[in-house]
Amino acid sequence: MTAYSEKLDAVLQNVDTNLDASVSRLFEILRIPSISTQPSHAADCRKAANWMQRELEQLGMKADVRDVQWSVPGHPMVVGHDQRSAADDSLPHVLFYGHYDVQPTDPESLWTAPPFEPRLVEEPSGRQVIVARGASDDKGQVMTFLEACRAWKQVTGSLPVRVSVLLEGEEECGGANLLPFLKENAAELKADVALVCDTSMADRKTPGITTSLRGMMADEVVIQCASHDLHSGLYGNAAANPIAVLCQALATLRNADGGVTLAGFYDGIQDPAPATRAQWSRLFPGDSSLLEEAGLSVAAGEKNYSAIEQTWCRPSCEINGISGGYEGEGFKTVLPAKAMAKVSFRLVPGQDPDRIREAFRAHIRAALPADAHVTFTAHGGSPGFEVSRDSRFLNPALQALTDEWGVPAAMVGSGGSIPVAGEVRDALGLDALMIGFAQNDDRIHSPNEQYGLDSFHKGIRSWVRVLAALAEAG
Amino acid sequence: MTAYSEKLDAVLQNVDTNLDASVSRLFEILRIPSISTQPSHAADCRKAANWMQRELEQLGMKADVRDVQWSVPGHPMVVGHDQRSAADDSLPHVLFYGHYDVQPTDPESLWTAPPFEPRLVEEPSGRQVIVARGASDDKGQVMTFLEACRAWKQVTGSLPVRVSVLLEGEEECGGANLLPFLKENAAELKADVALVCDTSMADRKTPGITTSLRGMMADEVVIQCASHDLHSGLYGNAAANPIAVLCQALATLRNADGGVTLAGFYDGIQDPAPATRAQWSRLFPGDSSLLEEAGLSVAAGEKNYSAIEQTWCRPSCEINGISGGYEGEGFKTVLPAKAMAKVSFRLVPGQDPDRIREAFRAHIRAALPADAHVTFTAHGGSPGFEVSRDSRFLNPALQALTDEWGVPAAMVGSGGSIPVAGEVRDALGLDALMIGFAQNDDRIHSPNEQYGLDSFHKGIRSWVRVLAALAEAG
Repeated sequence: MTAYSEKLDAVLQNVDTNLDASVSRLFEILRIPSISTQPSHAADCRKAANWMQRELEQLGMKADVRDVQWSVPGHPMVVGHDQRSAADDSLPHVLFYGHYDVQPTDPESLWTAPPFEPRLVEEPSGRQVIVARGASDDKGQVMTFLEACRAWKQVTGSLPVRVSVLLEGEEECGGANLLPFLKENAAELKADVALVCDTSMADRKTPGITTSLRGMMADEVVIQCASHDLHSGLYGNAAANPIAVLCQALATLRNADGGVTLAGFYDGIQDPAPATRAQWSRLFPGDSSLLEEAGLSVAAGEKNYSAIEQTWCRPSCEINGISGGYEGEGFKTVLPAKAMAKVSFRLVPGQDPDRIREAFRAHIRAALPADAHVTFTAHGGSPGFEVSRDSRFLNPALQALTDEWGVPAAMVGSGGSIPVAGEVRDALGLDALMIGFAQNDDRIHSPNEQYGLDSFHKGIRSWVRVLAALAEAG
Repeated sequence: MTAYSEKLDAVLQNVDTNLDASVSRLFEILRIPSISTQPSHAADCRKAANWMQRELEQLGMKADVRDVQWSVPGHPMVVGHDQRSAADDSLPHVLFYGHYDVQPTDPESLWTAPPFEPRLVEEPSGRQVIVARGASDDKGQVMTFLEACRAWKQVTGSLPVRVSVLLEGEEECGGANLLPFLKENAAELKADVALVCDTSMADRKTPGITTSLRGMMADEVVIQCASHDLHSGLYGNAAANPIAVLCQALATLRNADGGVTLAGFYDGIQDPAPATRAQWSRLFPGDSSLLEEAGLSVAAGEKNYSAIEQTWCRPSCEINGISGGYEGEGFKTVLPAKAMAKVSFRLVPGQDPDRIREAFRAHIRAALPADAHVTFTAHGGSPGFEVSRDSRFLNPALQALTDEWGVPAAMVGSGGSIPVAGEVRDALGLDALMIGFAQNDDRIHSPNEQYGLDSFHKGIRSWVRVLAALAEAG
């Protein structure tokens, strides 16, 4: 037993004792509306970055806010290094990654309270949840790590491992500055392993380390036919309708079996190992176990894959937004000039985002009749990712999670895209341990986003244990 | 030569002399934002009704504003009777119909000036146009008739025929109160012929009387899958996407030949007579003559019909609006719970709006996968309409228009829906002469709606002549 494991109980006790203060600090950062995709919130993003910098300094780190300039919008990075990082290079060195930016809040009308006024709500089951935009994704998750560091410092005066922190402000809007930032600062940010807290547990009771991630290619399509909006009575039938053209083009993105029809879409993809599929099917027996929280019962996509396989390891095609013509109250017999859709594809290892984008654009172009014109806007692309299972840190981290939750931790897939995992590998040569405490019903990206108080509390405790375990693995 | 035709030149001279004052009066009513489909403009609709009542009183009519209560929104009717109507029943009696409500103005950003601040703009050709919402549809057209009455009164002290006026405030939002109002007030509103000024000329130089009109069935579709918006990474592929479901359902509304696929859609429809088709093809030689003003070149609809046939005599199917998911700047990887479309069908004689609505809803329902639910909202329906060519007023009116424009007036079709024509026939037993001076490039229902100053000026002069001609036909 090392010095760290001897002190573990005292540190966990400190976490329990100070939970209210931890929640108060989380509420402070949740009140800052750092919506990165909306230019009107640029100042709020900087405010959130400054708040994080002060927080790192209070933890005894040397921290600063750094401007980025490779790509718009250029929300700053926050970088912090624990002083011990320089002092004791016999300890393992971890680079923790999270993001301080959040998704937009529309439709605001569906929130039961303002999204940037965090509050504790008791669910009918008696479970307490923190409700606010960013409560789960990713401010709540980031704070689990920082509060774990605080507890170690308060009890022992130091951290079990060397810690550096990188907090991004563009995760929800493409994150095009991250890779060049990592490359330019590779010498400074190099560590032994990256820790990422932006994923979910395997299920509500089972902790997980996410070892496979989907990438994403997102594109915006605008189809224009007439030069201006027309009266549907005067021109209807005879004038091309861009909404109808768009519907035609989008309706053929999947075939009758739910497969994506883009040329070469599935080239180079491998199914997960039979053992992995078996583990997943034990975690999610029947599709409804994943879908029922969403009010659904039947898997909608590819016929030969279970719901959990479809979201964890199969590439997807989703229409994330569509707009055209009159959308207000009542009726307006307009034949619009333009229609728009936002479409994204979750990608798995083997798929090239650039080739998928070209195949998508070719599909849309091929569907255009005479007089219809298309313009595309790229909204980021990143490949799918498989974490190396050889890392010497993986099993100690799984054991630490198992100890905290009392249930064997699982290695899981994730449907979401977390480009940082691939980028720290490419830029810094690091494995990433993706450990998160979110739940599928956290409503991230949706109205009334929440983070269980249990996720937050046991998340902090989990990091306390993981840091001790990594110290021993060093 | 009757007393009326002797005075014709003097009355026409009066119109020319007072054109500026006529334009000023039109500008007054154009400044009232009487958008009937938006509840927030209900007071403006009443203000416009009151303005029209005062205008009719200034023309020496007994006029009042009448509440309607059969259906929401209940914007009032304005009814006026020239005093002579009661006094001299040897003269023909006309019931003039128009509407004081207007379409919404979105997208406001495409207007070059505020839509309710009317202004005269000189086009590059030197032609002067009045630009404002409602300039053409229908305030400008209504005022051509009222200004013609004013000129007759100023010069001769009376009108050539007995005149009653009915102005509606719900033409742009379904008009469900009109038919019951006509029926309840049938004794009062009964006349010899109805005059409707809400249509276009045959082309820029050729006056026309519209003798065939399409009806309309409009429906709103909302498809819901999940109970709330989902994260497309966590649920994408496996959770049904209502935008994709909607696109699938809408994409199959037409077949590869442009025909509408609803069951029984074309049952009972007749093609126009060969002579009529020949006249139309002389007016519009080649599809581009109709389409080029819209920036289009190729007819998009049914393969075996010309563009003008498609808009004047063939039923249509148009998606007038679509909405779902994230429509703002940037990108949001939401998998929305709901998606909405507004769809309308222009109908021709032989089609039953109620049956078409049921066929449409059956089509959508048949396209729904498991877990997808649909709700429909009806937005009005009216059948197509063919005006009787036997009316003793038709040929005199055509001759009056021919005299004013120096080009033989044509009997034309109209793509737009003007339910009043069928409703005055059903409720009052009246033929309707639909005479209008709008142009296809008036951008009605679109940003920068306009009405040519020539349309307005010669429109007033045309009505001066038509009133005299109808007096002789009496």
